[in-house]
Amino acid sequence: VVAVLVCPDSFKGSLTAAQATAAIAAGVLESGLDRAEILRCPLADGGEGSLGLIAERWDVPLEQTKTEDPLGRPHTARWAFLPDDERAVIELAEASGLPLVQDLPLRVLDAHTRGTGRLISDALSRGARSITLCLGGSATVDGGVGIAHALGARFLDGEGEELPPTPRSLGEIAAIDLSRVVPEAFEAEWSLLVDVTNPLTGPQGAAAVFGPQKGASPEEVALLEAGLASLAGLLRELTGRDASGLPGAGAAGGAALVLHAVFGAEIVGGAEHLGLLVGLPELMARADVVFTGEARLDGQSGGGKVVSHVSDLAASVAEPPPVVCLAGEVLCTPAELRGLGLTAAFSIANGAQTLEALMNEAAPGLRSVAANATRSLLALSGDRPKR
Amino acid sequence: VVAVLVCPDSFKGSLTAAQATAAIAAGVLESGLDRAEILRCPLADGGEGSLGLIAERWDVPLEQTKTEDPLGRPHTARWAFLPDDERAVIELAEASGLPLVQDLPLRVLDAHTRGTGRLISDALSRGARSITLCLGGSATVDGGVGIAHALGARFLDGEGEELPPTPRSLGEIAAIDLSRVVPEAFEAEWSLLVDVTNPLTGPQGAAAVFGPQKGASPEEVALLEAGLASLAGLLRELTGRDASGLPGAGAAGGAALVLHAVFGAEIVGGAEHLGLLVGLPELMARADVVFTGEARLDGQSGGGKVVSHVSDLAASVAEPPPVVCLAGEVLCTPAELRGLGLTAAFSIANGAQTLEALMNEAAPGLRSVAANATRSLLALSGDRPKR
Repeated sequence: VVAVLVCPDSFKGSLTAAQATAAIAAGVLESGLDRAEILRCPLADGGEGSLGLIAERWDVPLEQTKTEDPLGRPHTARWAFLPDDERAVIELAEASGLPLVQDLPLRVLDAHTRGTGRLISDALSRGARSITLCLGGSATVDGGVGIAHALGARFLDGEGEELPPTPRSLGEIAAIDLSRVVPEAFEAEWSLLVDVTNPLTGPQGAAAVFGPQKGASPEEVALLEAGLASLAGLLRELTGRDASGLPGAGAAGGAALVLHAVFGAEIVGGAEHLGLLVGLPELMARADVVFTGEARLDGQSGGGKVVSHVSDLAASVAEPPPVVCLAGEVLCTPAELRGLGLTAAFSIANGAQTLEALMNEAAPGLRSVAANATRSLLALSGDRPKR
Repeated sequence: VVAVLVCPDSFKGSLTAAQATAAIAAGVLESGLDRAEILRCPLADGGEGSLGLIAERWDVPLEQTKTEDPLGRPHTARWAFLPDDERAVIELAEASGLPLVQDLPLRVLDAHTRGTGRLISDALSRGARSITLCLGGSATVDGGVGIAHALGARFLDGEGEELPPTPRSLGEIAAIDLSRVVPEAFEAEWSLLVDVTNPLTGPQGAAAVFGPQKGASPEEVALLEAGLASLAGLLRELTGRDASGLPGAGAAGGAALVLHAVFGAEIVGGAEHLGLLVGLPELMARADVVFTGEARLDGQSGGGKVVSHVSDLAASVAEPPPVVCLAGEVLCTPAELRGLGLTAAFSIANGAQTLEALMNEAAPGLRSVAANATRSLLALSGDRPKR
């Protein structure tokens, strides 16, 4: 029996990770391989689709909580509670995402993460002891003050007056009152999932790189940059903890800043953390062959992304299985592929095709190339498929 | 050492078979495979490119002979003489091809193969004892009377008057005078290379299927059909040999009709015959892995085509090596692939691409997919490439 691990990311714009997994699995079965055991493990990197993936894998319904959007308007958001694990899985974009405020002109200085904080507060009150917070897709650059505020933190100016928990206030915060924070927030284990390595500040930071797409003018970028730096200094003094040197602290408008300093939240690779949640390491240890995939593979795929995590994990087991990536577009050289640790990568394209056709036909394309890749992988092994 | 046989057809419109072979070989070497022995064997199916392939493989210069085009105008045509083998390799399209007469309105009733006959006559006088005649691409539907005429045959009507050796005469031929035919033509071994299986006559025959592209109106198709059938009947009476039941007799305007009956010419699969000439069977017996390829692989690829011949030959050796087809477009299902006996097929496309881009980038595309396919094939074998 050949154990074939199928663990793709979603194909953004065309297939969910579960759909991609089904298409690849169908191709493996279609390959003529007699005795295949298919280990299905759709993955995500902490971005869009992570929540649905977890809910499906754990077979839990999505919770619905009444909260607010980045501009404070009423909004109902979804999250997942995994009772066996006492874990809440929350996507920041569900309550604080950019799509929620695109009906209005963007106001980056006012957009905050309090809505996400209210979800976390609800989760803690429901018994969550671990918080898995997927960063990415946010409308905000608030350093996490909105979340902390929803949990009871008060941000004060030099006069001891409370400031609104918005980006506009960042540079004026002179003190933080944590006396009213719910105790469960301190006791919980926080994991912040990122798929980028941008630092908090600087030219690659939260304001400079992601500010403009959230509506920040150059002047506003400078204000946000100064505000984040100022708050980082204050938190370092107060707590001795400073997220500004951590890779990934620039994700989701610097949300890790307050959460790391105040609650000890760890910044972790999204694919790695979600992989642990869904049991990827155990499946990898049993795999003879691994298929992963994503919409677009380029030489820069790396960091917390699914494909590079799968490849790294495969390399870490005793007898590393070959890892083949199936992608909509394969834009890397053989040398880059080897740098990623991949055995091979194949596009789902079967000839000249428009991008639209490629996306519309992603499932049959994936199935077909998976069948061909399976037959190639096993052609010279003891489990050779029938001719 | 892994012996990798690289034996593609040309990629029509973009790469010669030699260029395709070089690109695939470069990919195999790029794959990280430590000890590969690459067996290069560019192929052809008897169509365009066959002559150049043979001349290159045998390292002989192309001969040039002054002859005539399908309308009798002066024309210099190329052919190859392989002295060790006392063999002439001749493409019918070189002297009797459709492109030679596309400067004028097409006159299918007058277009003949005498120009090719003059090449053969020259080859016989130079010492050729074997004639390899590649059919395909012809402007003619003359049943081979032009060739026979150039070698000395005379076609007579009911009155014993000589007829011009053109399609217009076919239905009027009542007798054939072979007394002046050069004796070497009878002594030679003739091989007619085809990549189609169309019969001489009928709805799939030379007139009905190929006549219109040579300019035949419906009335002319009927005249040609009747002429070929009439000549077939006469030849059966005269020689006891009748090509009209042979698959492939419909190639090149029924050129096999006279040549089979008068000179005992055999109709053979183009890829198989050329493969024998270039030593493919010996290389196949040594191959651990085989790469073939063509511009467009579909479920109907078969007959005398390169890819299906390579697959059949691989299946015939003691330990059949896997055969992977690399193609511009892969238009067949996994089931059809297995029907063709292929291990796998991969497109050179790496994502959404126009046909023009796919063709312009055929060489790098082929190199890249060859590297990936090599790594896949060997991933689970003892000769696993370096990660």
